Amino acid sequence: MRIGILTIGNELTSGKTQDTNTSFIARHVFRQGWEVAAMLSVGDDDEAIRSGLEYLLGLAAALIVTGGLGPTTDDMTTAAIARAFGLPLFTDEAVLEQIKERMTSRNRPWIPNNAKQAAFPEGAERIANPVGTAWGFALKRYGKLIAVMPGVPAEAEKMLLEGVIPRFREEFAEKVEVLTRIIKLSGVSESAVDQLLADIPLAGLGVGIGFYPRFPELEVVLTLRDDLPERAAERMAQAEGLVVQRLSGHIIAYDQETLEGVVAALLESRKMTLALAESCTGGLISDRLTDVPGSSGFFERGLVTYSNLSKEEQLGVPAEVIRRHGAVSAETAVSMAEGVRRIAKTDFGISVTGIAGPGGGTPEKPVGTVFIALADGAKTECRRFSFPWDRRRNKVLASQWALMMLQNRLVGGGEDHAQ
Amino acid sequence: MRIGILTIGNELTSGKTQDTNTSFIARHVFRQGWEVAAMLSVGDDDEAIRSGLEYLLGLAAALIVTGGLGPTTDDMTTAAIARAFGLPLFTDEAVLEQIKERMTSRNRPWIPNNAKQAAFPEGAERIANPVGTAWGFALKRYGKLIAVMPGVPAEAEKMLLEGVIPRFREEFAEKVEVLTRIIKLSGVSESAVDQLLADIPLAGLGVGIGFYPRFPELEVVLTLRDDLPERAAERMAQAEGLVVQRLSGHIIAYDQETLEGVVAALLESRKMTLALAESCTGGLISDRLTDVPGSSGFFERGLVTYSNLSKEEQLGVPAEVIRRHGAVSAETAVSMAEGVRRIAKTDFGISVTGIAGPGGGTPEKPVGTVFIALADGAKTECRRFSFPWDRRRNKVLASQWALMMLQNRLVGGGEDHAQ
Repeated sequence: MRIGILTIGNELTSGKTQDTNTSFIARHVFRQGWEVAAMLSVGDDDEAIRSGLEYLLGLAAALIVTGGLGPTTDDMTTAAIARAFGLPLFTDEAVLEQIKERMTSRNRPWIPNNAKQAAFPEGAERIANPVGTAWGFALKRYGKLIAVMPGVPAEAEKMLLEGVIPRFREEFAEKVEVLTRIIKLSGVSESAVDQLLADIPLAGLGVGIGFYPRFPELEVVLTLRDDLPERAAERMAQAEGLVVQRLSGHIIAYDQETLEGVVAALLESRKMTLALAESCTGGLISDRLTDVPGSSGFFERGLVTYSNLSKEEQLGVPAEVIRRHGAVSAETAVSMAEGVRRIAKTDFGISVTGIAGPGGGTPEKPVGTVFIALADGAKTECRRFSFPWDRRRNKVLASQWALMMLQNRLVGGGEDHAQ
Repeated sequence: MRIGILTIGNELTSGKTQDTNTSFIARHVFRQGWEVAAMLSVGDDDEAIRSGLEYLLGLAAALIVTGGLGPTTDDMTTAAIARAFGLPLFTDEAVLEQIKERMTSRNRPWIPNNAKQAAFPEGAERIANPVGTAWGFALKRYGKLIAVMPGVPAEAEKMLLEGVIPRFREEFAEKVEVLTRIIKLSGVSESAVDQLLADIPLAGLGVGIGFYPRFPELEVVLTLRDDLPERAAERMAQAEGLVVQRLSGHIIAYDQETLEGVVAALLESRKMTLALAESCTGGLISDRLTDVPGSSGFFERGLVTYSNLSKEEQLGVPAEVIRRHGAVSAETAVSMAEGVRRIAKTDFGISVTGIAGPGGGTPEKPVGTVFIALADGAKTECRRFSFPWDRRRNKVLASQWALMMLQNRLVGGGEDHAQ
């Protein structure tokens, strides 16, 4: 099946916003085994939307549209689509009521423009938005199916997976089994993975493979379409087994899992606790771990000891160690990790100290130099890294390696991640 | 002048690669005062390219095309464009020679397909590629101008700025002045802003306005095109003055500034220091502030006191306060903020304690209840919030309000941000 993607918004055509919806939609369309005929972006303009719809409907059996469903005057997607198909708009009273309740519960004033979000072209089915006020809708016209969602990526992504794709599968009576398996890697390059997997006979199993770099991770995606569910599952398991074996030591998570989620689950299942002493990551590791619901069960405290004095006062790092070896050193990192573990009385203590950039580098310790230490009472491991990126990405990569070191310790792997 | 953008490649339509060329080109087209009529992506397919060209040429006076100029068989942009316009291809011997030299100097073997990169449609002007082997070209046809560049972003970006835009400026001899002003708001809804600004006569000043929500912020963007630079500046200043007056109390930053960057600059200019005591935000405020280069100048430490015990031990919150009022309470928040300020000996102490969700809510303190306290030694302000989002967005919103309370204190504004 061929699908067209239309994203709408002046913020796109002015280059103000990088459109990520199109790529997200295309990826998931591709995983279903469907084909993207064309991807188009136009501004919030009635005639541009009309001509875009016409062009795409000439190429594709179905369209996925995002953007322009907000309450302001420049949001005109619903009206433009209704006009393009010669359909009147009607107000869905139940949706209107729900939007009013939502505004009230958030203490937002009601203004007449908000009612626009309860208007739909005649004959449209509503598509629920689990995370925002703007509903989506699906419209069947001239034998073609058009699904419309808001442009906010978090909303569009959820609605695509939970509303639009299931609706399309139903409409086009997709009986074929589509299996997808995502294997998330970190600390290894795309070309190295490509080489590691080069001689695995995936095509013979009918399994497709794709690499999707998402800093600081690399996703390896296996896809399979098969008429027979049992055979599909068997072949996918076989393909996955082969791939996982080759990539062992680089895998941090599967499918929708996150690295922090996996580490949290490992700590919880072992009833173990963690405390953090962060310097250059500035609280990012704490932030990532506390994004996991229930993290208070294993995360005791995190001390963002940015100043030297705070490293001494909060963690008991001897002033002499900092004076002699510097705040960015293996000795300081080890003392920080052991200090925070001792103070918080946790099973693990992790520390990070480094130079995130852009300033602060020296010939011996250039920007990107980071020490990460992991203490568990029995031994303290400390590793030195040289990250090549900008300040933010160096922070992200340091937080990634800290979590990977802990994951590795928890799964008891003797194997070491290659940097 | 209206311009169409066409990006070509199977890696785009499969969602494997996030297209960044389109957004980059759109931004620079917009800065020239030109308008993007539509932005289209299609796969490496002869018919898709032909129909895309036809569609875009119907909307625009000029096209910018990237992708599909490589030496491999799936690269077919040049041939497809020639066919679409009924033009024969010819080989540019000088370009061929240059490609051969380049391959030799890099020890790359010569394969016949490489010669494709020296073929151009009849009548095309070459556009130099300062950083790669693939030349671009410009073609004038039916009074329209089509510029074609390779898809590698580093190459396309350089060729756009050095080759294509100068060629377009020459062709269309445009001299209009383009001004853009971004005003970033927080704590106010898009529809409320729309209403606040409804009666300002921006159109009369020739100023366009757009709203771009970027959770948890809302960007108000003013744009102006004018033949006369002086008049443009004057009108933009007038429009901005009117808008800023209406939005006073909600504005957190301008243009490329971030809230954390503005707060950091305020602290630095006043030579004041800050310490944080975070519970439900889990280090996110520390993370945001330490994204600002040089933050060690004002950020002394941040204590992520997730457990009750850590609140007592690290911050000196009396166990009695937590027992009586709960860890999520104004009393605990105040004690945390004053505690961290005292311990770190900083000018300001900020604390956040709350229930980010999804679990942990009670009838009196439902999920989303957050207390934020700001202590400066003279007085401690504490505010209670009810955030309606999921765990991550509640964390983000709490970090936003904590920074806004500090910003407000620093600018000495008596005005209060409305939630």
